[in-house]
Amino acid sequence: MKAEKISELTTNRLSVYLRCLNALTAENIKTVSSEGLANRFHLNSAQIRKDLAYFGEFGVRGVGYYVEELRNTLTNILGLDKEHRVGIVGAGRLGTALADYYGFKRSNFNVIALFDTSKEKIGRHIGNTKILVYNFADFAETVRQENIDVVVIAVPAEFAQEVYGEVIKAGIKAVLNFAPSSLQAHNNIKLKTVDLTISLESLSYFLAQPQSENSASSGNNNAKHEQPLSRKKQLK
Amino acid sequence: MKAEKISELTTNRLSVYLRCLNALTAENIKTVSSEGLANRFHLNSAQIRKDLAYFGEFGVRGVGYYVEELRNTLTNILGLDKEHRVGIVGAGRLGTALADYYGFKRSNFNVIALFDTSKEKIGRHIGNTKILVYNFADFAETVRQENIDVVVIAVPAEFAQEVYGEVIKAGIKAVLNFAPSSLQAHNNIKLKTVDLTISLESLSYFLAQPQSENSASSGNNNAKHEQPLSRKKQLK
Repeated sequence: MKAEKISELTTNRLSVYLRCLNALTAENIKTVSSEGLANRFHLNSAQIRKDLAYFGEFGVRGVGYYVEELRNTLTNILGLDKEHRVGIVGAGRLGTALADYYGFKRSNFNVIALFDTSKEKIGRHIGNTKILVYNFADFAETVRQENIDVVVIAVPAEFAQEVYGEVIKAGIKAVLNFAPSSLQAHNNIKLKTVDLTISLESLSYFLAQPQSENSASSGNNNAKHEQPLSRKKQLK
Repeated sequence: MKAEKISELTTNRLSVYLRCLNALTAENIKTVSSEGLANRFHLNSAQIRKDLAYFGEFGVRGVGYYVEELRNTLTNILGLDKEHRVGIVGAGRLGTALADYYGFKRSNFNVIALFDTSKEKIGRHIGNTKILVYNFADFAETVRQENIDVVVIAVPAEFAQEVYGEVIKAGIKAVLNFAPSSLQAHNNIKLKTVDLTISLESLSYFLAQPQSENSASSGNNNAKHEQPLSRKKQLK
């Protein structure tokens, strides 16, 4: 296994493949070729073969991939065979929506606790999943007691850096940040920012180009590389 | 202006620069060098110079960039000088959180309408911003009447493709998708998927690597290129 060469773009594609394999399993499909997978889910078959080749020999000539075997392998590679215990800082509407986000559970991320500084929220159970809101002042202690290993930051931008500092001090190694704020990265901490403003502005850029010269680039979930926005000349 | 060479990664960085310039303006700072911008906001100065060079000559030797001029230019390039009118399909907790997301307004995206199929929600004004929930059955008509040009999909995965079809039929060219679902891309439609599961799974992959061999890669808001997860051998 040549793990030293695996970029985040590759692991993102592995996530997509895993999701596709889950869909095939739900339909009781036992084997699939890279072309079959590509056609069905709008992926690139050469890219699939290349990505999977990093991790060993999976495909069988004339058969394709064994769905169950490949699922298990991808689950292990992505570390999804092990539960992660998630704390969400910020029990506002976004934090609460995230606590209920079903994709967390599906990926073996269990939301254990919300944290807030508001007296009205602390001690309440909120959202559909009735997660308890802890006092952010007790963050480090709660992280220890509840074995939390992943933290989601869902606070206003102006508090994000301070919260991030506390999160790192508590020994957390993986952080998903939703605050629209440029956080100072730390070595040995995985910080992933989901920045909706940037996504919005790439839409805006697209709309600002002359209509006849647009070419759409795809989202990140269909596992194709991003395309430059080319300027194809078309007839009106 | 060599717009034909601008990739989405570049426009994402322009978004970050614009945000940094907004912060400088708030502090009444008039000029900034690429190094000053880089140091202050954890960016790469050579990358800044390269990105901005696409769009003309901005820097003045010994002065740096004029903050106000560069802000205006980036605002225009990104199409943020023009209002975009946003409809959000799905008036659940996520859709409602998005309707209230202040980053939309800051980027000149005004949320005009929510859409749902639930009789309990249609006709109500929801969220802090009291956006009216329309019947999704009247989607195309409402898009026309309200001049909606951007749509956000915030429905469960199983409905996303159907909703996306209706959105395109109504003539919408820019779509931000939050459903964890692989949508079939269309030519001349800008589809941007925000997939939280993929972000989560990249955290999980990181945590699954042996601790001493981890190297954190950064989030997308500090405008550095993604780094492969290297496997540095360290002493325990």
